[in-house]
Amino acid sequence: MLISKIGEFGLIERIKKLVKTGPLVIKGIGDDCAVLRFDRNKYLLSTCDMIVEGVDFTRKDSPYLIGRKSLAVSISDIAACAGTPRYALFSMGIPRNSTVEFIGKIIKGIVDLAKAYKIDIVGGDLSRSEKLIIDVNVLGFVEKINLVLRNGAKVGDIIFASGTLGGSILGRHLKFSPRIKEARYLVNNFKINAMIDVSDGLAQDLSHILKESEVGALIYEVLIPQSNQASDLEDALYSGEDFELLFTMSRKEARKLFSRRSKIFTPIGEIVERKYGFRLMDERNRERVIKPEGFRHF
Amino acid sequence: MLISKIGEFGLIERIKKLVKTGPLVIKGIGDDCAVLRFDRNKYLLSTCDMIVEGVDFTRKDSPYLIGRKSLAVSISDIAACAGTPRYALFSMGIPRNSTVEFIGKIIKGIVDLAKAYKIDIVGGDLSRSEKLIIDVNVLGFVEKINLVLRNGAKVGDIIFASGTLGGSILGRHLKFSPRIKEARYLVNNFKINAMIDVSDGLAQDLSHILKESEVGALIYEVLIPQSNQASDLEDALYSGEDFELLFTMSRKEARKLFSRRSKIFTPIGEIVERKYGFRLMDERNRERVIKPEGFRHF
Repeated sequence: MLISKIGEFGLIERIKKLVKTGPLVIKGIGDDCAVLRFDRNKYLLSTCDMIVEGVDFTRKDSPYLIGRKSLAVSISDIAACAGTPRYALFSMGIPRNSTVEFIGKIIKGIVDLAKAYKIDIVGGDLSRSEKLIIDVNVLGFVEKINLVLRNGAKVGDIIFASGTLGGSILGRHLKFSPRIKEARYLVNNFKINAMIDVSDGLAQDLSHILKESEVGALIYEVLIPQSNQASDLEDALYSGEDFELLFTMSRKEARKLFSRRSKIFTPIGEIVERKYGFRLMDERNRERVIKPEGFRHF
Repeated sequence: MLISKIGEFGLIERIKKLVKTGPLVIKGIGDDCAVLRFDRNKYLLSTCDMIVEGVDFTRKDSPYLIGRKSLAVSISDIAACAGTPRYALFSMGIPRNSTVEFIGKIIKGIVDLAKAYKIDIVGGDLSRSEKLIIDVNVLGFVEKINLVLRNGAKVGDIIFASGTLGGSILGRHLKFSPRIKEARYLVNNFKINAMIDVSDGLAQDLSHILKESEVGALIYEVLIPQSNQASDLEDALYSGEDFELLFTMSRKEARKLFSRRSKIFTPIGEIVERKYGFRLMDERNRERVIKPEGFRHF
């Protein structure tokens, strides 16, 4: 049976079933970060993301931006848990015909973004491979009271997205700034119930929150903040790599957020009971079911 | 300029120069693990190792053993720092034509070895790639007083190796058991000055200790514990993937170790002043210079 038959998320489910974790693991496989015991006030966060030539970038992309992206995607996972990134290790599979200049620019892209986010690069591994591959592991911290996972959404919550969605493939996926500052602002000022970063598209990533929280959602077409580069609504729903924050909070907290007149955070819908599933209200007030589809590796 | 011109270690040197780390980093790039502040008594260790189809294994190898190896090499780095492994994350690049059975066996190999070493698997990332690639990140801990790095070897120290060396390519590289128990025995009973695991061959890995410690070494051909599978001395010196421990301790500590009549640890030579370089005394009492060569990715 080919791996595409069960798909990326089917495989993750199988791995989850095989793995049992001990009491020091607050959250294992299945969220944006692993959450591990650290000290009385803080948790340790760990996440890794692999980017692959031909899937996440091409050889024609700027090597500096390839390096930058390889770190940015892991930082975005730390943001999704409302943490602060602190350390990074990176493994690189490097094709034999690479030049020192090309690899040097990739590394510069990693190092510069690390500096901008005050992350110490502390190790890694270099290997030979046919296609260029970079896997970055980021360690971070989050105060226990500020940890946000995918599983805390409650019926009645308002769903928000940061920034705009869609069209990232036109270039933004290589240049985005992970939403650490925004996530920290949120948890320092509001009670956030659930959060994820939009890596595989709004439809798929919101589905993860719904599944983990055992709830449904109704989102409104008119509210979805489509990027200028999005070709249409479907693009904003399914195309992925936006690396924006998607989160839910109670109506009371949402009113507090509205009163700040923030331009970054847009309400896009509400959490409803699970039995209603995941629906979109279109511009003509017709509801349709949203399938949890988006970018999948296989 | 092609990357092979500066080589794997030349590239690591360049990265080291680009990277500055803060006060929470006890040891960054350039040892077996990153060593990070944790609490009053312990350090946090983090390491990652990438294994690549066609370089570290082939599609004809047992998928169970491929998975096992992907985790084992990172555990071996924790052993080299005398730590205890605790958590693992793994990223996999999976070719489209892979079967669920094949990938399932790889994951079983990872999960079983994790259980054997009491490691919690807490996360990872799945991606599509042309060749199978697995990058494993292991987090562990070491008591501050037990941390061993590459840079502590002192003139007069005796150099030891665990197990036997050479011929690993015939199959042992897929089945080795990382030397956690042995490393913990050593630091719990002796003062170890420097340690590394033999991943790229005795000659190259001992050279790392010599460089970091600013010393030289004289090793004795008759003492080198050649594996039954090693074809000759050169194989034992240069072939790599033994994943044995290589360490140095004072003569006084070495006498204590001798008195235990351990069959695992073999003295192979002594640390001398840097100006003598790295030499081997052959069976006819002739000295020759050992070049720091071994497995290199490029």
